[in-house]
Parts: sequence; structure tokens; C-alpha cells
Amino acid sequence: MNIELSARQQKIIDIVRMNGPITGEQIAEQLHLTRATLRPDLSILTMAGFLEARPRVGYYYAGKKTEQIFGDEIRKYLVKDYKSVPVVIEEQTSVYDAIVTMFLEDVGSLFVVKGEGTLVGIVSRKDLLKVAIGQRESKDVPVTLAMTRMPNLIYVELEDSLYQAAKKLIDFQIDTLPVVKVLRDSKELKVVGRITKTTITKVFVELGTNREI
Amino acid sequence: MNIELSARQQKIIDIVRMNGPITGEQIAEQLHLTRATLRPDLSILTMAGFLEARPRVGYYYAGKKTEQIFGDEIRKYLVKDYKSVPVVIEEQTSVYDAIVTMFLEDVGSLFVVKGEGTLVGIVSRKDLLKVAIGQRESKDVPVTLAMTRMPNLIYVELEDSLYQAAKKLIDFQIDTLPVVKVLRDSKELKVVGRITKTTITKVFVELGTNREI
Repeated sequence: MNIELSARQQKIIDIVRMNGPITGEQIAEQLHLTRATLRPDLSILTMAGFLEARPRVGYYYAGKKTEQIFGDEIRKYLVKDYKSVPVVIEEQTSVYDAIVTMFLEDVGSLFVVKGEGTLVGIVSRKDLLKVAIGQRESKDVPVTLAMTRMPNLIYVELEDSLYQAAKKLIDFQIDTLPVVKVLRDSKELKVVGRITKTTITKVFVELGTNREI
Repeated sequence: MNIELSARQQKIIDIVRMNGPITGEQIAEQLHLTRATLRPDLSILTMAGFLEARPRVGYYYAGKKTEQIFGDEIRKYLVKDYKSVPVVIEEQTSVYDAIVTMFLEDVGSLFVVKGEGTLVGIVSRKDLLKVAIGQRESKDVPVTLAMTRMPNLIYVELEDSLYQAAKKLIDFQIDTLPVVKVLRDSKELKVVGRITKTTITKVFVELGTNREI
């Protein structure tokens, strides 16, 4: 919202921020004006959400900053609405075949699963690169030797926010998060999607693309 | 701004959106109210930026949507304020040494430079992985054989917006952008920083962290 405040309205906000809670009479006094003169300004500022009025207490500052609106809004985006399709391999796969799959699917990480998609590990380009420059032939090394294994995996669930996902990507310095359903009885994780830094970057571009024409 | 509109104010906005430009009298007529009754609503809506009033024309809709505020705001972030330090290697470096540097510096891409930091190419984990699983010994292959070479490099400049950078990362499906100064005489690019999907993800987390307490 592009609200244009008058100089007097800006002054009122400053007074309330510094001295609130403060009564209308006290604000009027500070500005050398009558309470009646201020009434329209006070009601506009209250309506617009800059000030809140409490009976018998007075006005106090309640304005959100633009940044806070951003924060509130961004936390509404959910993992389930932005996740992409997971790329999975079996435990028996060799490092060599994992690398080939990575190129074919053009992803940065693969999820290693057993049975009906139960997550056992994650392997990244970095993990594979480490083996690839090692002494052993990559066709002879099983991917399970290169992967990060449960229970050390960081993951998100469908109802988590994209903000939480982004924070995990940064805090744990990883590129990909599996989106999982937790099967409660068994403590098993079933892979249902993935969130990467690419996902977040795409959302950032979307945010920036919405603009006034 | 967390403006709370009354039901009547919301109705006024709807009328103006559908019928604007429209005079105050015409709005009052549609609502079966007098012009005087509407006056405070119309001034608040105009002040708050939902409506604009033009003399002899009437009111028309001018409200920004939250998304548009986001877009406008996000386009203000500049590459120069968010870039991180570039990690560079010389043209003579082998693929093996490039991989080692990548692990030591913990980055996903290296910039290949000559002379005083003139950009000649970029090499990613993906590029190095491709060579690492090939037949040739990675110590014998120069990094110049694996890298993407000028003039095929996508880059940004210091005064570009972070939005433009994010859009390039997505549009060209790359993970890292060199931030360069273009030396005009010579068409040479001097590397001064880098922007990655990690940079963008960090900014997204910052945006989500700003919220009401």
C-alpha cells in the first residue's frame, strides 16, 4: 500500500513511537493543537494500522514495516505447493551409475531408497566427485559408501513452509532437501518430493516479476 | 501496512474497479447513500492509495497488490550489496587440482582467469564430474578443457539487481554467476565477485525472518 502521510501525520507517529501509550490530548499538547484538529489524523492513522487505540490507555504504535509484511507473506508459502519430483536410485547402484543418472536427470542430488521408496540416504555431486577422484574404480563402489545416511538426513514435510526449507538449506549448508511423509508407526520416511536452492531462486524470481505495469 | 477496510470501503473499491472512472455522486447513488456520507471513506481510500481522484473525471482504481509491492521492493536489491568473494584458478590448473580447490574453498564453481583477474572461463562441479569419470587421468587434463569459455559466459555487473541475477540463474540453468567489471576499451571482464543460488536463498531467508514480534 502506497500511503502518503502528511508531515503532521508523520510527526504524530513519531510521538507515539517514542512516548506511547499516549492519549490524544497529550499528543495534541505536544503539537500545540486542539484534540479536535487532530481527530481526523488520528482516525486515519488508526485505520491504516499505524496506531492502535485502547480505551483508557491511549494510542500506541502498531505499524508494520514493509519488511514485516514480506516476512508474514513469505511464511505462507508451503513446501507442498513448490516441491519438484524426486529423483531416486536403489541402494545397489554404483557410484558410476549414480553419476550417469545425475547427468541424465540433470539434478544435483539423488535420493537413495529401498523397498517402496523408503529413504536411506542422499548423495550429492560433491559426494560423487570425492569418490570419482579417488583410487577406486567408480563402477566398483556402491553409492551407499558415498551417501549421507539416515538418521543424519535433513528433510522437510509437506506442510512445512518454504521459509523453513530455505532456512535448513542455509543452516546445514546443503543444496537439496527431500520432502518426506513420516510413517509414524515405523519411523520410516517416504520420499515424495524435493526442494532445492533452485526452487527458492525460482520463487524469488516470481516475487520480483509481480510488479506494477 | 495492515489496513482494515470496512465492508463499505471494500464495496466502494469494487465499484470503482469495475466502473471507474466514476464520480463520487455516482458511487453514492449505487450505494443508496449521500455524497456527504461517503466523503470520509473516499478520502481514506484515496490517501491509502487504493483510489486516485482526477478533477472533472472522477475516481479510478490505483491500488497496488501486495505482490506488486514485493516486486517493486525486490528489484531494489543490488548485486553489489550481496555478492560474495570469487574463487579463481589459473588457466594452467589441472582438473584434479581444480577439484581439490573446490573442496578446500567449498564452492560449486571456480572462475578461470588469466593475468590480473581477466575472466576466461567458468568450471562447475558438473563439468569436473564429467571429466572425473572419463578415461583420462584428471591430473593430466587442463581445466580449460572442462570449462565453459568466453564469450559464452553469463555474468552480471555490480549495479544490476539481484532480481536480474536470479532470473539469469534460472533462465540459463546455472548455479553461479561471476560479477564483473567490463573494461570498455578492451572488452575484457574483470572478476570482482559471485552470485549463486545460495546468495538468493539467503536473501529469501532474510525476507522471511523479518516479521512482527
